[in-house]
Amino acid sequence: MPELRQDPVSERWVIIATERAKRPSDFKPPHKEKNGNASCPFCPGHEKETPPEVLAFRAANTEPDTPGWQVRVVPNKFAALVAGGEVASESKGMYRTMSGTGVHEVIIEGPDHDTFFPDLTPEHAVQVLKAWRQRYLQLERDKRLQYIQLFKNHGPTAGASLEHPHSQLIATPLVPGAVNEEMARIKAYWQEKERCLFCDLMKTELETGARVVAFNKEFLAFCPFASRFPMEMWIMPRRHQAGFGTCNDEQLEQLAAILQDILGRLKQAVNDPPFNLVLHTAPLRREDSIYHWHFELLPRLTIVAGFEWGTDMYINPTPPEIAAQSLNEISVSPEEEG
Amino acid sequence: MPELRQDPVSERWVIIATERAKRPSDFKPPHKEKNGNASCPFCPGHEKETPPEVLAFRAANTEPDTPGWQVRVVPNKFAALVAGGEVASESKGMYRTMSGTGVHEVIIEGPDHDTFFPDLTPEHAVQVLKAWRQRYLQLERDKRLQYIQLFKNHGPTAGASLEHPHSQLIATPLVPGAVNEEMARIKAYWQEKERCLFCDLMKTELETGARVVAFNKEFLAFCPFASRFPMEMWIMPRRHQAGFGTCNDEQLEQLAAILQDILGRLKQAVNDPPFNLVLHTAPLRREDSIYHWHFELLPRLTIVAGFEWGTDMYINPTPPEIAAQSLNEISVSPEEEG
Repeated sequence: MPELRQDPVSERWVIIATERAKRPSDFKPPHKEKNGNASCPFCPGHEKETPPEVLAFRAANTEPDTPGWQVRVVPNKFAALVAGGEVASESKGMYRTMSGTGVHEVIIEGPDHDTFFPDLTPEHAVQVLKAWRQRYLQLERDKRLQYIQLFKNHGPTAGASLEHPHSQLIATPLVPGAVNEEMARIKAYWQEKERCLFCDLMKTELETGARVVAFNKEFLAFCPFASRFPMEMWIMPRRHQAGFGTCNDEQLEQLAAILQDILGRLKQAVNDPPFNLVLHTAPLRREDSIYHWHFELLPRLTIVAGFEWGTDMYINPTPPEIAAQSLNEISVSPEEEG
Repeated sequence: MPELRQDPVSERWVIIATERAKRPSDFKPPHKEKNGNASCPFCPGHEKETPPEVLAFRAANTEPDTPGWQVRVVPNKFAALVAGGEVASESKGMYRTMSGTGVHEVIIEGPDHDTFFPDLTPEHAVQVLKAWRQRYLQLERDKRLQYIQLFKNHGPTAGASLEHPHSQLIATPLVPGAVNEEMARIKAYWQEKERCLFCDLMKTELETGARVVAFNKEFLAFCPFASRFPMEMWIMPRRHQAGFGTCNDEQLEQLAAILQDILGRLKQAVNDPPFNLVLHTAPLRREDSIYHWHFELLPRLTIVAGFEWGTDMYINPTPPEIAAQSLNEISVSPEEEG
């Protein structure tokens, strides 16, 4: 069973992941994993190499855990957190621990090993997002879970150990510190101005225009003013909405479209860079809270190192205005849009 | 001139580093740079390839910026922050900026391209630390500077773009958010218990023993209870002391010894892994504040990815008790200790 431990200095929680336990001698230098179709556990025909699927959008008359699926969700074989009994919290002297109760799932985004999200058909891309939402709403019913971190790592240096396109979710038995802090700041802004900080941000960005990359009826994508990373983008629902789980079908369609658009632009602008796509959303069952969910897209073109660890300040060599301009110069042809 | 920008959501400051400005097309995938002696700007004989030295410990009768030095400090050629006038702060609507006034220096730790810190003679290792302290105390006199982040990146995936052993310091015109937060927590602990959080941590760790890696009269090195990274270690002065700059000569000798010891153990235990060594210290000219300076040593054997960015939680596959045990099993022979 994994264990959660809280650092008494930063109050940060760490998952001591016994399911993926490593002794120091197990570490090899990070390297670019080239797995290819033949040995890929996410490719059709290899369904028995993953734990049994918990959700799949698949052709009629096909059996679970066999080929015929378009999107497939399975528990992570090397889960950071695992289901198992109640959440137990303990204090020992200065130190606090909690049982590593949770859920860690992988969303396999399509059967084709080499077709990355922006190259899917629009209908297929929407299916991926529907799988995200369906698992989100299903897991929200488990009262032991407090937050769902949905994310996509693309490229080995961004943490994707398998190259077959996939995203992941980890449901945690506590509300992560970063979420609590962001909510506290939004609440303080609301109390002072009686407006939402993110709604105001979008208003400013649309007025200025210099950092806008794309928008449609429901979503805005822009390079944030204080971007930590070159080509960083935030993708935000234009309506004020606390939680990702309350997205309706039309919103999911527009979100899929804007994600395909900006990921396609990023791929062309910087030659398919590694990135992390990270959901920020309200804690589970708190859609009434003061929050405004969104995604952050963090290209990993710079290396987080000693300065950043010490200060939580970032050194970004690409002003977001130049990043937005470069992304806007990319012409996405109708063919490329799928 | 670089610009500091504050994110209105996280209140995090970002350096838009115009001195190292990159257009999106400038990025290449990160790769292991093998520069070797011949083209290394930090090797003796190449002194003209760096900006003029600001400090060097060198043989008598040798000229500045010529060979003959043991430790050499130069401004970073691609500085994140640069000296230049007063610190100007500005608010534009929702956004806050500050001029990127500061100092960015490189401490070249020795003339030999391939001799890493633990393999230096003990006397040479102390000289490196004396250079850190001397630059620290010199820069502290500049009232525009509020904090000095001293750090060492080792290995290309930990951000070292040149392999010649070196450390760096960046002096900032504000107290970084991470430092303010840590100080606030220490202050809260002090107000509640009338004791120092870090002094209590060391007491607990020495009593338990299970996470201790090394200690001498002045310093303790241990794997923290909620280690974010496999083999993470904190190195702390056993006397209560707020700022690194007030270290005396005996302390520097003992710090050099414990750093050589634990870096040597780490190198053997995990085959010379990439790491960041990061100073945490009181803001400049605030040696009277409630703080307890220390170093954090963060081996980079795991990849920070979507989950960590979203939550500020970390997944660590190696319990710190196992890390400490493995580090203790390494026998450092007298020869290896130098």
